[in-house]
Amino acid sequence: MRFFSDNAAAAHPAVLEAMVAANRLDTAYDGDALSKQLDGAFSDLFETEVRALWISTGTAANCLALASLCPPFGGVICHREAHINVDECGAPEFFTHGAKLLLVDGPGAKLTPATVEQIAAGIRNDVHQVQPRTLSITNATEYGLVYSPGEVAALGEVAKRRGLGFHMDGARFANAVAHLGCAPAELTWRAGVDALSFGFVKNGGLSAEALIFFRPELAEETLYRRKRSGHLFSKGRYLAAQLLAMIDGGLWLDNARAANRGAALLGEGAGGRLVHPVQANEVFLRVTVEEAARLRALGFDFYDWGPGEARLVVSWDQDEAAIRPLADAIAAL
Amino acid sequence: MRFFSDNAAAAHPAVLEAMVAANRLDTAYDGDALSKQLDGAFSDLFETEVRALWISTGTAANCLALASLCPPFGGVICHREAHINVDECGAPEFFTHGAKLLLVDGPGAKLTPATVEQIAAGIRNDVHQVQPRTLSITNATEYGLVYSPGEVAALGEVAKRRGLGFHMDGARFANAVAHLGCAPAELTWRAGVDALSFGFVKNGGLSAEALIFFRPELAEETLYRRKRSGHLFSKGRYLAAQLLAMIDGGLWLDNARAANRGAALLGEGAGGRLVHPVQANEVFLRVTVEEAARLRALGFDFYDWGPGEARLVVSWDQDEAAIRPLADAIAAL
Amino acid sequence: MRFFSDNAAAAHPAVLEAMVAANRLDTAYDGDALSKQLDGAFSDLFETEVRALWISTGTAANCLALASLCPPFGGVICHREAHINVDECGAPEFFTHGAKLLLVDGPGAKLTPATVEQIAAGIRNDVHQVQPRTLSITNATEYGLVYSPGEVAALGEVAKRRGLGFHMDGARFANAVAHLGCAPAELTWRAGVDALSFGFVKNGGLSAEALIFFRPELAEETLYRRKRSGHLFSKGRYLAAQLLAMIDGGLWLDNARAANRGAALLGEGAGGRLVHPVQANEVFLRVTVEEAARLRALGFDFYDWGPGEARLVVSWDQDEAAIRPLADAIAAL
Amino acid sequence: MRFFSDNAAAAHPAVLEAMVAANRLDTAYDGDALSKQLDGAFSDLFETEVRALWISTGTAANCLALASLCPPFGGVICHREAHINVDECGAPEFFTHGAKLLLVDGPGAKLTPATVEQIAAGIRNDVHQVQPRTLSITNATEYGLVYSPGEVAALGEVAKRRGLGFHMDGARFANAVAHLGCAPAELTWRAGVDALSFGFVKNGGLSAEALIFFRPELAEETLYRRKRSGHLFSKGRYLAAQLLAMIDGGLWLDNARAANRGAALLGEGAGGRLVHPVQANEVFLRVTVEEAARLRALGFDFYDWGPGEARLVVSWDQDEAAIRPLADAIAAL
Repeated sequence: MRFFSDNAAAAHPAVLEAMVAANRLDTAYDGDALSKQLDGAFSDLFETEVRALWISTGTAANCLALASLCPPFGGVICHREAHINVDECGAPEFFTHGAKLLLVDGPGAKLTPATVEQIAAGIRNDVHQVQPRTLSITNATEYGLVYSPGEVAALGEVAKRRGLGFHMDGARFANAVAHLGCAPAELTWRAGVDALSFGFVKNGGLSAEALIFFRPELAEETLYRRKRSGHLFSKGRYLAAQLLAMIDGGLWLDNARAANRGAALLGEGAGGRLVHPVQANEVFLRVTVEEAARLRALGFDFYDWGPGEARLVVSWDQDEAAIRPLADAIAAL
Repeated sequence: MRFFSDNAAAAHPAVLEAMVAANRLDTAYDGDALSKQLDGAFSDLFETEVRALWISTGTAANCLALASLCPPFGGVICHREAHINVDECGAPEFFTHGAKLLLVDGPGAKLTPATVEQIAAGIRNDVHQVQPRTLSITNATEYGLVYSPGEVAALGEVAKRRGLGFHMDGARFANAVAHLGCAPAELTWRAGVDALSFGFVKNGGLSAEALIFFRPELAEETLYRRKRSGHLFSKGRYLAAQLLAMIDGGLWLDNARAANRGAALLGEGAGGRLVHPVQANEVFLRVTVEEAARLRALGFDFYDWGPGEARLVVSWDQDEAAIRPLADAIAAL
Repeated sequence: MRFFSDNAAAAHPAVLEAMVAANRLDTAYDGDALSKQLDGAFSDLFETEVRALWISTGTAANCLALASLCPPFGGVICHREAHINVDECGAPEFFTHGAKLLLVDGPGAKLTPATVEQIAAGIRNDVHQVQPRTLSITNATEYGLVYSPGEVAALGEVAKRRGLGFHMDGARFANAVAHLGCAPAELTWRAGVDALSFGFVKNGGLSAEALIFFRPELAEETLYRRKRSGHLFSKGRYLAAQLLAMIDGGLWLDNARAANRGAALLGEGAGGRLVHPVQANEVFLRVTVEEAARLRALGFDFYDWGPGEARLVVSWDQDEAAIRPLADAIAAL
Repeated sequence: MRFFSDNAAAAHPAVLEAMVAANRLDTAYDGDALSKQLDGAFSDLFETEVRALWISTGTAANCLALASLCPPFGGVICHREAHINVDECGAPEFFTHGAKLLLVDGPGAKLTPATVEQIAAGIRNDVHQVQPRTLSITNATEYGLVYSPGEVAALGEVAKRRGLGFHMDGARFANAVAHLGCAPAELTWRAGVDALSFGFVKNGGLSAEALIFFRPELAEETLYRRKRSGHLFSKGRYLAAQLLAMIDGGLWLDNARAANRGAALLGEGAGGRLVHPVQANEVFLRVTVEEAARLRALGFDFYDWGPGEARLVVSWDQDEAAIRPLADAIAAL
């Protein structure tokens, strides 16, 4: 059984069905009937007027957002363990034309107003140093922790006070919303977020994320950047179809809830082995090399996460029957 | 009936079926079983060892190829009407970090050894001028003309003599091969081509092109550039599935032959109205504004191409029954 | 005698004296007493509030200006023979992060409202094509022709109507002003210019140009770009000293007038050989290979400018005695 | 008295005299008689064939070196407090087109083989993470510490083993050599260094650093990057003149020795207040806010360096008489 990555899971059948249904002649690029529905559908979901662009990968969505918020000579405050810093091969630097990531430490890959203020305060306000221009957080974080609306809003206030754009990497935004049970609006624009990379691929999608701009003017120039970076698909309707299928009837939330439930189940058996509380669909365990080997011998696959730690990720399609054996095996270690 | 763009057509059912068949758990990114077959499958097709990367758009495939062949301070010799110059919103400049397109004129968007030599000869060999480092041609061209293996080889010799990398934009490579009836190898590496953007999306694909490197070392660093530009899909198996479906049993050639046949049919009725000979799946006609309006009134859709010209593009799924009415209407103008 | 380039001439003694006088302890970068005088001195000269930055080369001044006016995904309309296109090794693309130069033809390297409108009109307003965002002209042009205030203002109106930034490459701005006898203000901000690269090095300076912003907010971010591109000198006072020496007492105009006079003298003897009217300090002659050889045999050095043409450039330090022999030799051809 | 920065000092009279002597007609750019002497003069100094380019600022010299050694998708291992990381406003990212600085900690801003290995070992060898391609050290460091030839060679071996280019920021290279009394060759190419930014401006120069390539092929493409970044001066002879004046008769070493002597004198009186041993021309002191104020009240100027620290920099032109009063004041605190 794979607990490696939610990227390894299959796409939800409804997503593929929507793609098959879209398989007819239509206008190229984003002029088709489905792509034109995105602004409306996501505006409804977020209870405000947004611009929603399909983007094929989370890296591209994140970095197009950053490029719209940060000039080449600016800096992006983010966590040292943020995906944009450690897992995108310098894509932020590529898309922004060399902006600098200004790295903050803190448990669980979470930023706080205090740590943001601290790094900002340590930068001299002169031309020799890269000035912070954007703040980027991941919700849920790379360690499966969830920022509450209040926590996001507190960071949004810092951003506003300091004149920083505010980006949220929501590769697992669905898992965060599922955990909190709040409205998507609470966690984003009402808390000061300017742009959201709204992830679907880890959550049952196939090849489409949504880049949501809560400040519509940012979308305008991003349309050029999307084309210029090779991300304007000529048959965009298949991406739009995926997104619409995911938000139709709340499939995105159902999938995230299922994955979160599975992770919670794993967490229950893990007890004191948990490195972080389980809030989304990731579980980080303290295990010895020998224990990890024992789990693998039982057929469970996962990442080693530094020495003495394992990362288990639950996908949308793993139900209790799929999870229980691993939960039991962990409890029995 | 749409004769607007081969991008507007549906994907071939076999492509979607292959994606559905790929819809299961597998390793993320390009570590899955299907992605691992690409090097082999395309090496067979090209009768030499190649590296084959799935890339979701033609713009990205072209520009990743250019970035692997041209340094930021170099120049890319191409036709003024090349897609990379007029239809990619500066993507070549973005991916290469500012290389300059050095533009050549000539009928039908074709380059010749003479026009390449002429532009190269006009550049002073000093640091004040951008030095040519790469040659890029489109086959079939933006006007549906096909370079023969001999014509490509003649350009390949210029490239070799001048130390230029040689890129072929093959958005309609299949149509060129179908027209020529030659081996893909003849039209590419045997003629000196270093990198080919092998298009499938216009030819019945959904969202996957193949970037083929005939010099394997170029692929190695392109893997980083692909990730860095947000083009490494986490569920790459759905792109690999498309490519394998297209080359399996020669579907790519069947589709291209069908589209070429349709264009030939249109061309036959067009007679003296043809701006260019019809070799691939595009037909350029001389029509007055009034004639264009008449065709549109009959339900035919197409692009105006400058004053007094119309562009008609035939897709893989338009059979004789779909084409004949337009052919007749043109003949009756 | 050298008529090769005004870059080959010595610096004016007053410039070196000012540098020697500046050779004392002062604050580093641009915090010194001299650098702080620049905004005021140039505001006086231009009769409006400007920001004036020392920049060590014309290429850097031009390209920092362009970067402040044009986004990476935008285009700069300029003449095909503009220095920024043919003699800066892709520096505009480097500084702007890949903006595209949109090239206009026309005699004497001059743009007109008609040719600017024509190129702009030929660009489809969609994301596939790079949209013009900036207009750049050279005054005096690369062929020594001078735009009058009226001509600049006509272009400024086009720029304004189309929302384009307006940059003037003034490598020989002094020669243009000297020719016209107008106020610098007439030729710049009153005519709609946003940023001027005000050249001094070709006109008796040593290593300092002035980048003048008529929209102060553009200067703010350019300070970061200047540092980031390695153009913030730690001992900036020696650059400021040069600029102040040049504008003090109108030395810049005296030098330009002297060079223009010399060119006019050459032009008088050239008669029907002139390719362009002589307005600044450059003279372009029709000469056969044999005639060029004859002039060189007499000890005169100059550039061949394409087949059958020669370019002669007069420097600030060449007086009538230095010019007369060549003028006579041309007349005697 | 200023102990702020060695950038604030005047230029050495011999440097200005050399510039005055160069003030005559000569070939533009780097084709003049003086520029042509650089390769030879520096090859003599380094006892091997080098390529030597004048560059007007240390930031540009550093970043042109990095761009020649590190691809856009690569990483540069350097110290967190390296000048390239904290004081160049993102210039490395600009010149390299987005390479990532991979930051190492350690006392005195020094790297060691162990800390380099540690960061390199922590990077997964896959396309998701930026791979290290270059190692950059500063000698003397930003805290005035000097790497010995043996220390450099040990790092050079790590670089070689891992396939990293090796750059030395030698803004205060002269001070390091003066401290060690070794041959420049020992500290550079014999220890594996590929490129050296050889600083002169802080050491009595005016506006010229030397970028030394110990692998000549790196110089070839750097000539294009120098032009492209606006750093090819049209009157380059004045930069060459400065460099030749500095190495002629060992002025660079004399100046560095003088500055080092001054710093040593300050260090002697400082005793237990020293944060780092004094090896070059910088002195870091532990002082309370009150003590710092007392020194300032006596007329001494310097930087606060974090809470409770002061940085004092001695320049080439401060002799014992200039230093003694501060040394006494520190001893008397």
